[in-house]
Parts: sequence; C-alpha cells; structure tokens
Amino acid sequence: METKVILDTMWVLITGMLVFFMNLGFAMVEAGFTRSKNTVNILSKNFIVFAVSSLSFWFIGWGLMFGNGSGFVGLEGLFGISGADNSPATGGEYQGVYSALSWATVPLMAKFFFQLVFAGTAATIVSGAVAERIKYLSFILFSFVIVGFIYPITGHWIWGGGWLAGLGFWDFAGSTVVHSVGGWAALAGVLILGPRMGRYKDGKVNPIPGHSMPLATIGAIVLWLGWFGFNPGSTMAADPEAIARICITTNSGAIAGLLSSTIIAWIFLGKPDLSMTINGCLAGLVAVTASCAYISVSSALIIGTTAGVLVVFAVSWFDRLRIDDPVGALSVHLVNGIFGTIALGLFAEDRFIANTTGNGLFFGGGFDLLIAQLTGVVAVGIFVFIVSLAAWYAIKSAFGLRVTKQEEYEGLDIGEHGMESYPEFSIASEHFSNVSLDK
Amino acid sequence: METKVILDTMWVLITGMLVFFMNLGFAMVEAGFTRSKNTVNILSKNFIVFAVSSLSFWFIGWGLMFGNGSGFVGLEGLFGISGADNSPATGGEYQGVYSALSWATVPLMAKFFFQLVFAGTAATIVSGAVAERIKYLSFILFSFVIVGFIYPITGHWIWGGGWLAGLGFWDFAGSTVVHSVGGWAALAGVLILGPRMGRYKDGKVNPIPGHSMPLATIGAIVLWLGWFGFNPGSTMAADPEAIARICITTNSGAIAGLLSSTIIAWIFLGKPDLSMTINGCLAGLVAVTASCAYISVSSALIIGTTAGVLVVFAVSWFDRLRIDDPVGALSVHLVNGIFGTIALGLFAEDRFIANTTGNGLFFGGGFDLLIAQLTGVVAVGIFVFIVSLAAWYAIKSAFGLRVTKQEEYEGLDIGEHGMESYPEFSIASEHFSNVSLDK
Amino acid sequence: METKVILDTMWVLITGMLVFFMNLGFAMVEAGFTRSKNTVNILSKNFIVFAVSSLSFWFIGWGLMFGNGSGFVGLEGLFGISGADNSPATGGEYQGVYSALSWATVPLMAKFFFQLVFAGTAATIVSGAVAERIKYLSFILFSFVIVGFIYPITGHWIWGGGWLAGLGFWDFAGSTVVHSVGGWAALAGVLILGPRMGRYKDGKVNPIPGHSMPLATIGAIVLWLGWFGFNPGSTMAADPEAIARICITTNSGAIAGLLSSTIIAWIFLGKPDLSMTINGCLAGLVAVTASCAYISVSSALIIGTTAGVLVVFAVSWFDRLRIDDPVGALSVHLVNGIFGTIALGLFAEDRFIANTTGNGLFFGGGFDLLIAQLTGVVAVGIFVFIVSLAAWYAIKSAFGLRVTKQEEYEGLDIGEHGMESYPEFSIASEHFSNVSLDK
Repeated sequence: METKVILDTMWVLITGMLVFFMNLGFAMVEAGFTRSKNTVNILSKNFIVFAVSSLSFWFIGWGLMFGNGSGFVGLEGLFGISGADNSPATGGEYQGVYSALSWATVPLMAKFFFQLVFAGTAATIVSGAVAERIKYLSFILFSFVIVGFIYPITGHWIWGGGWLAGLGFWDFAGSTVVHSVGGWAALAGVLILGPRMGRYKDGKVNPIPGHSMPLATIGAIVLWLGWFGFNPGSTMAADPEAIARICITTNSGAIAGLLSSTIIAWIFLGKPDLSMTINGCLAGLVAVTASCAYISVSSALIIGTTAGVLVVFAVSWFDRLRIDDPVGALSVHLVNGIFGTIALGLFAEDRFIANTTGNGLFFGGGFDLLIAQLTGVVAVGIFVFIVSLAAWYAIKSAFGLRVTKQEEYEGLDIGEHGMESYPEFSIASEHFSNVSLDK
Repeated sequence: METKVILDTMWVLITGMLVFFMNLGFAMVEAGFTRSKNTVNILSKNFIVFAVSSLSFWFIGWGLMFGNGSGFVGLEGLFGISGADNSPATGGEYQGVYSALSWATVPLMAKFFFQLVFAGTAATIVSGAVAERIKYLSFILFSFVIVGFIYPITGHWIWGGGWLAGLGFWDFAGSTVVHSVGGWAALAGVLILGPRMGRYKDGKVNPIPGHSMPLATIGAIVLWLGWFGFNPGSTMAADPEAIARICITTNSGAIAGLLSSTIIAWIFLGKPDLSMTINGCLAGLVAVTASCAYISVSSALIIGTTAGVLVVFAVSWFDRLRIDDPVGALSVHLVNGIFGTIALGLFAEDRFIANTTGNGLFFGGGFDLLIAQLTGVVAVGIFVFIVSLAAWYAIKSAFGLRVTKQEEYEGLDIGEHGMESYPEFSIASEHFSNVSLDK
Repeated sequence: METKVILDTMWVLITGMLVFFMNLGFAMVEAGFTRSKNTVNILSKNFIVFAVSSLSFWFIGWGLMFGNGSGFVGLEGLFGISGADNSPATGGEYQGVYSALSWATVPLMAKFFFQLVFAGTAATIVSGAVAERIKYLSFILFSFVIVGFIYPITGHWIWGGGWLAGLGFWDFAGSTVVHSVGGWAALAGVLILGPRMGRYKDGKVNPIPGHSMPLATIGAIVLWLGWFGFNPGSTMAADPEAIARICITTNSGAIAGLLSSTIIAWIFLGKPDLSMTINGCLAGLVAVTASCAYISVSSALIIGTTAGVLVVFAVSWFDRLRIDDPVGALSVHLVNGIFGTIALGLFAEDRFIANTTGNGLFFGGGFDLLIAQLTGVVAVGIFVFIVSLAAWYAIKSAFGLRVTKQEEYEGLDIGEHGMESYPEFSIASEHFSNVSLDK
C-alpha cells in the first residue's frame, strides 16, 4: 500500500511536470506562427497564463470541479483547497470533500498539481486563437474566468462525478474536458474580436505567415513530449500495462495525424507545408486524448489519420467563414476535441480496461456509448460557448477587448509592453506592414 | 528496504536530470537578455561551465563539501570521490567518509549526480552578471575555483554537517547554498570588471535591451521546469507527502513572484515589461527554495509576492549604484537568495516536517531560528565575497579579466571565438553600435 | 515481483520519453549548423522522421530485430507486433516470440516504446549529413527503409540474440547498433549525393557557417539531457547501482569530449570554436554509449577525451576527402560510434556487472573481447554501407535524390515546402548567395 502511494505519486508528479512543460510548447507554437511585432505579447500571455491559472484554480476552480456537490458543480471545500481530505486514503477509507478523486492513491497536493497543469492548458488554448489583436489585460481576465469557473464546471460534469459521468460519457484525458472547452471559449472570443486587420481583403484570404518556423517546431516537439505526460499520466497511477499502452496509442495518434496532414497538404496545396504537418501532429494528439486508454493501436492510427485530414480542411473552412485563428487553435483543439470525443464512442474496446467504457459502435457496443458522447459534446459546447460569450462581452464592456488599429498595425509589443522582441534585427518592411493601416 | 532504494534513486536521478536541464534555461535567459554580438560567447560559457564544474566537483569539491572533517571543511575522501562508502546503507549501518549524506537511501553515484548538478548551478549564476565583457578563459578559471573550492566550503557548513548546521541554520534546497553563493561571487566579479561600455553615460543609465525575447522565455520556462527537480528533488527521497507539497509551494513562489513583479512594473514603469515578469518568476523561485519544505502554500504565496517586488526595485537599485548586471542575476539570485533564507526564519512551520526547523517568528517560534538564518546569511556572504574577490584578482593579475575595448565594441563572438551567432541576419547598425567606441 | 514491474516500467517509459526528446535536439543542432534558406526543410525532415520511423518499426522493424529467428534476422511475429508474448513474464516463464527481450521485466508496449525511440535516432543521424541538398521525399523513403530493414537486421545481430551477440560482441546502449549504423548509412548517402554547391571550390574548402548558434546550443543541451535517458535507460530496469553509475559515466564522457575538443580547437584553430565544443560533447557521448555500464569514471573520462580529439580531426579529414557533411554527423556518430565500440574492448571491467563483457585489454582481459568488438564494427559497417548504397541508388533511380541546382541555390524551403523559415527578417545577401549558381 505505502509503496503504491510512492509509485503513483512519482508517476503523477513527473507526468504533471511534463504537462507543465507544455506551456513552453504552446508559447513557441503561437510565437512561431505569428508576426515578430507581436512576439513579446504572445510570450507574455503564455508565460503569465499559467500564473493566473494557478491562482484561479487554487482559489476557486479546484473546489468547483472536484468538491462534493450537485451533478452540476462542486459545493464543498471551495476556497483554497480548504476542505477535509485524508488522501492518499482511497475508496471506503477516504474521508473528505473531494470524493471524485478518491480513487487516486496519491496525496492531495499531487492531485492538485496534476489537475492544475491540465486547467492551465485550457486557458492556453484560447491564447493562440485571439492572438495579435487582444488587449493583454483582457486576456488575463478571461484566463482567470475560464480556469476559475468555466473549465471546472464542465470538468465537474465529467471528472468531478457530475451528470455527464452519470450518463455514461467518457473522456479519459480531456479531448472534451480540456481541448474542446478551450476551443469553444476561443471561438467565442474570436467571433467578438473579429479578424486581424487585412486578413480578409476584397473577398480574399490574405495569408499572414508566421515569423519563425524554428520556434514553432520547438513548440510542437515539446507539446508532443508533454502529451506523454498528459495521456499516460491521466491514469494517476503507475499501472504498467496501461501506461505503456497509452504511450503507444498517444504516439500513434500523433504520427498518423502528422503523416496524413502532410500528405493531404502535399496533394491539395501542392507542397508539404510544415505548419500543416505540425498542426496535423497536434490534431492527432488531441483526437486520441479522449480514448487513448480504451483503444487499440490500429484504432489510434485510424483516429489520428482522420484528425490529420480534418485539420487541413478545417483551417480553410474557418477561413471561408472569416473566422480568423492565427495559429489554427480551433482546427486543432475544437474540431479534433469534438472528433476525438465522438471517436471514443466508435473505437472503444472493453478488453483494455474492464468496467469502463464498454465497446464502441465499431466493436459491437451499439449506439449507447456514442449517444452519450454526442450528448456530452453538445452540452459542453453550448454551456462553454454561451458562458464564454457572456464573459468576453463583460470584459469588453468594462475594459475593451481589442487594441487600437494604430497599435495593431505597429504591433502589440510596443503598444502593450513597451519593448521589442528582436530589437537588433532588421525586419523587412513589406512584412512588417503586410497590412495597411487604413485596412 | 531494497524497494525504497530503487524508488529514492529513481527520484534523485530524474529530478537531478531536470536540474541538469537548467543549464539550458540559464543559457537562454542570459543569451536572450544580452546582445547578439556576444551570443556565441554566452552560449559557450553556459555550455562549458557544466563541464568545468563536473571536473572540478569530481576532483575536489565533492570531498570538501561532504567528506568527514571539521565544521569548516571536509577533510576525508577528498580527491575523485576516493573515500570509503557503503551507500545506500544509511544511519547506523553507514560506513564511510561521507557521513553528511548518510541519511539518503541511494547509491553514492546518485548522491554525487544530484549534488553535481547543484554545484554547476552556482557557477552558472555568475555567468549572467559578468556577461558581455569577461574573457572566456578567465570565466572558465573562476568557474573551476568556485565549484572546486568556494561553493563546497560554505556548502559544507550547511549541508556537509558543518558549523552553520550545528547552529540551527536551515536551507532546504539552496537559497543560500546555491543562489546567494553564486550571487556574492558574481557581485565580486562585477565590481572588479566594472560596467559595460556605454552603460552609464553622462550620469544616466543607458538601457541595453536583450536581443531575443523568445530565447529568454524559453530559458525562463525551462528554469521553472528545472525547479520542480531542484526543490522536490532535494528531499533525496520519494516521500509522497513532501514531494507533492514542495511541488506546490515551489509553483506558488514562482507564480506569486511572476504576478507581483508584473504588476509592480506595470504601475511603476508604465507597462508590463516581459523581462521583469521573467525575473519576478525566477526571484519567487529562488526565494522559496530555502523554505519550500517547511512552509504552507499561503506562506509561499507571500514569499513569492515579496520576491517579485524586491526584484523590480533591486534592478534599479543596482543601476543607481552603477553595478552593471546585464541579466539581473544579482537581483534574482543574491537579493532573493538572502531574502528567501531569512523568510525561512519567519514562515517555517514545525507541522510539515517534524524535528527540523521548528517554527519561525510568524508562527510563534521566536527569534532563535531567525537569528540563525541571519548569521548564516552574513557568514556566507562575507566568506564568499572575500574569497571571490581574491580569486578574481588572482585571475586578473595572471590572465586579465576584461576583453579589450575594441573587442567589447565589436562583440566577444568574433574576438573570443572567431565566429558569429547569426551570420546571415542583418543587424541594425544603431543596435550593434549602441555604444560608441570612445565611450 | 509486481513492484519490480512497476518500477522498471516507469524507468523505461520515462527514459524513453527523454530519448524521444532527442528528436528536438537533432532538429536544432542540424538547423543551427546549416543555412536559413534550408531551415524549413531541415525542421520538416526531423519532425517527420520520427513518424516514418514509428510506422516502419511498428510494421516490420520490430519483428525483424526482436522476433525469434535465425542468427541473421527475426522471423516470427513480424508484422505489427503480432506475435505471442506474455511480458512482463521473464526468463523461464516467458512464452512468446520476442525472446531476445525476455529478460526485461516490463510490458511488451514498454519494450516497444523504448526500442522505437532508439530506432528513430538512427534515421535522424542520417538527416544531418545529407542536409541542404536532398529531396524531401527521397529522405522520407530512405528513413522508412533504414528503420524498417537496415537498422533492425544489424540490431538483431547484437540485441536480438543474433550471431554477433553469440560471438561475444557487446554494445550496451548502441555506439554501433544506433550511432555507427546511422553513420554508415549517412556516408553512403553523402557519397552518392556529392558535396553542396560551392563547398569545395578551386581546390579549397569554402566554409559555410551555420545560421543560428542559439538553435545549435539548444539542440546540444537537449541531446545531452536525452542521453541520460539513452544510456541509463538501456538497463531497461531500475537497478539503482547501475543507473546511478551510468549517469556519471555518461556525463563524464560528455564533459571530457567537450573539454578536449575545445582545447584542441583552441590550439589548432586559434579560437575555441563553439561548433567544435558542441560536436566534442556529442562525440564523447557517442563514444561512451557502448561501454557506459561496464567502465569506471576514469575510463569514461579517457574515452571522452579521445573522442573530443578525434572529432576535431575527423571534421577536417572528411573535408580533405571532399566528403561534405554539413553538421559533422559522420565525425560524431560514425567515427566515434566505431571508436566507442572498440573502446569497450579496451576499458571494460568485469567488476561492474558480472557475467557480461569480462575485462577489456587494458584490464587484463586479453584480446578476445577486442577482437569480437572489431569483428562487429567491420561486419556491421560492411553490411550497412552496402545495403544503404543499394537503397540510396534504388531511390535515386526511381525518384532522384538531389534537388535541382536552381533549387539548391535558392534554398530548399521554397523549392520543397513553398514557405520560408524567417519571412520577416532581412538576410544579408552575401550569405544567402555565398555560392554562385554556376558553382
């Protein structure tokens, strides 16, 4: 028993550290895929977002998500993890107000650390979609709100013993809990903010290339590494069979998405575009996240392949709708968060972990699981989208959301932070001003 | 017993690897905060410093620090870890000359690995403060001296069973042992070297912006990650309650420092300066390092908040004194290493780990602990500063410390290494020559 | 028993993740050491290569390498890891077709994960040597072939219970299995491709400096970190004494190579060239990889020192032979992979792990071990070089290997990928066109 506590705690903390490291991954992908005149702002957002998330999740989010309460929200032990808890006691011996995690054989602070790094991810996803035009303060405020309130409430429905869990909805490591929640919140923000200046001109899409492919690639590989914490760590227990298999299903999702997006881009865009390769890899990872513990390697390859195709078409689909997402966050996290959650209803197999999902549609389980998954996707989508819209509007009316045209033209680095990201380097003027001020 | 050895060894090695990775963090923060004409030199220093440290700590430092001996220095098993040792035997069963670490249930080589990566950190701290003007060879020689002699002697006082440990001085993971030691040695070097050309002109402080905020941000996040090895690993045992809690107190220090420095910079400098945000985060981490095992999360938040405020004012305070520290290393590591050591005397609580620090002043423990902490701060400061001054002078008289004016003007990359960091990129000339040669 | 499975699985997975992270290291070293006009291509190659390797090793490589079969190749359980296997059962209780790894107390998927990240490394080594002139598609195809067929066959000889293992040839973590195999395959490619345009002009070597030393340094430190997974993880068991000692021998190889290459470059080239320092570090790591479990720290220091000297001279030796290797991959991985394998025959000591290598020549073991090592070096070299030549020729005749002169002159980023790595930055024209189109 004692040894199991140590083993599980080591596993949870080390994988949690890998998930923490994903902050660097998100920062670099976003910085690399955007323009140098906004780089300080993007780095600042990605750096401060985990601090804001930590504060917000500590003060309120944790309790709303994992506190005992109703099927809708946690109501006990709300502020500052103040409730009773005798972790690492489990099952019948557990006495405390965070019963939803009483199955994990680790101390309370280990549970909090692991859940905190997940909560931070949801806020970070938003950052990329609203990049290059949002006010720094307004982004910080929304981050506080999503991690303190929005993320934990839908999280409670699923991981906190709430109504979706009761309905038979499954999401192993967070295709919905983390990724599509971040995606819906981002979509609400993007719709209110509108596209960047000059992005859609005279009925055409004006490409705005990212300023540094090395940064984007650093970010992508760091995210891939972090996902070996994100998914296998979500066992919250060092179960050898499970964690080894999840490493492989996770990797299979990544490589299949990477390859299929590259091939699709090669065929349809004429060249193997690196940004599509990167987003395909991330899309595959997002898509297997819900089901990684319950599927075979072959299923993971199919899910990943589909994700890589979806992401390429989603990027141009959003552009046709004039929804401007500088880094493809919606195509990666929203579209494939949804897809991955549904895919669990198709590909899950009972044989991997007994008494969990049962079999999905493709393995003889019928439509029950699939319907539960669809219900979750819709319910979470509606809730997060509407509450996020309200939050964005509230912040807009109080502080404004978007920087001035002049500031957007000159870059947010000077406007918001009073400094440049690369003060010594000559920036080719046609790139700096690839939009005209009069739009 | 055997299982405990395995668990503790895995924990020590994995956290030690994270601390090793801090070499990348320091390299990138320093490179990002300085000018591109010196980048090869800065990368070279940060890359070679761990090699020099490894050699120096292996040959002599380890024995001076952990060998049995007097209260002042280790005297047995000095060279090349040559002494008797039957680790992982512990307590009464331990037979060997490195008794100070006989409590750790890991093999000798695991102890050495973990202590080595700490020793390397002290030398790396120096690098940032003396950047952009020190000769490569002279920096290498000082690194050998600090890791071989200075760091291990004061380390012996505290972690080697020496006189400060006997006095009731506590420093869990090295606010003093590592950070303020590195800071004092750096201060001595900076005073002898003098400020960079053109830094203080006509009575004014001439800002010299760093050349790459992405590199600095990579460095900061890698350091933050590394600190999850630095502090929780300093248990040198996989104690679930302790390591989980230290992860959270460490993170709390980081986020509080990050947020308070950002707010203070926003208020007093007008904008949320990213370099202040980064240094605030590092300051918070340094400040909780001494006490992270003995304090509550609330205390960690208070310590971190204070550290973030301190670092902003320290940066301008050093500038007013014409002490030129290109990356803020003194404000981060010296000022907050001292503050964190004192804070332990204020915030420590007996309830976390029994029979260690007892309670600090704010928790009813009276002044005893605080006085011991202050004694340690002063004693270590005086010793390290004076011996470092002597070492810097010795190196100066033998090899010279500072590059020529011509070389400093053109950059150390060409002068010291015969190569450029970014040979293909156009550097805007006003930045390259933001100081004039005739000063 | 159960606890041992958990411990070993955690160790294998975590160290495997570190080896996975080496993909970032290789990407950054290669990108940093080459020109910005080819950076997107280099990042793309290094990103996709692990996906191709994963697919290829899954479908066929794993079975050829570890399936039961002849001394030459695995013949059972070939496709998609389809064979019987009751891991983590070990020894006599093991029932399955992958007997060569039946000693490892971890689940099958953990074995596969760890071996996969190794296989990926071999393909990545090739990337650097053929950089700046190879077609993207052709590189992808060769990667599939080396990981699916070439690497696993020689791997079977050594780690799969094949004829070299039977002969008494030892290679603990892959100086030969991974590094020299990658090196021989790269050499074959380089010879067929020929040097880059303008590299050797009028009988002189025309230096082509890498475009970003920060990227190269990021890569080097990430690789060093990854090696703490590569070597200590190759125990595939959390044996405290062994993994702690291997951490230190690995680090000793790195630092000795780093220091000796720096000193040699300082003496012979006049300045401490950072690229030599980096390659010296990697050379030391490659060289101790074969023997790290069987040697003393002093021996590791000697091996590393020798490797650092070898790499400096190998770089100019290859240039004299007009073998153009943009990043020094041959000098690092081929030359020191060979040297490290031979060094095991000289420095191995029986006292570290009983019943393995026995003593090498320098420790009274006579010439037997050394002769076995030399036999392996020669046999693997001949096989890999010839099969690789055939594979490169086959790909060349079907798809072509080298981009057009026009494309090579303008850069592969536009030609192969239709995008730029740094679209906003001004590139000094003399660097962009440091070769003339008419060669």
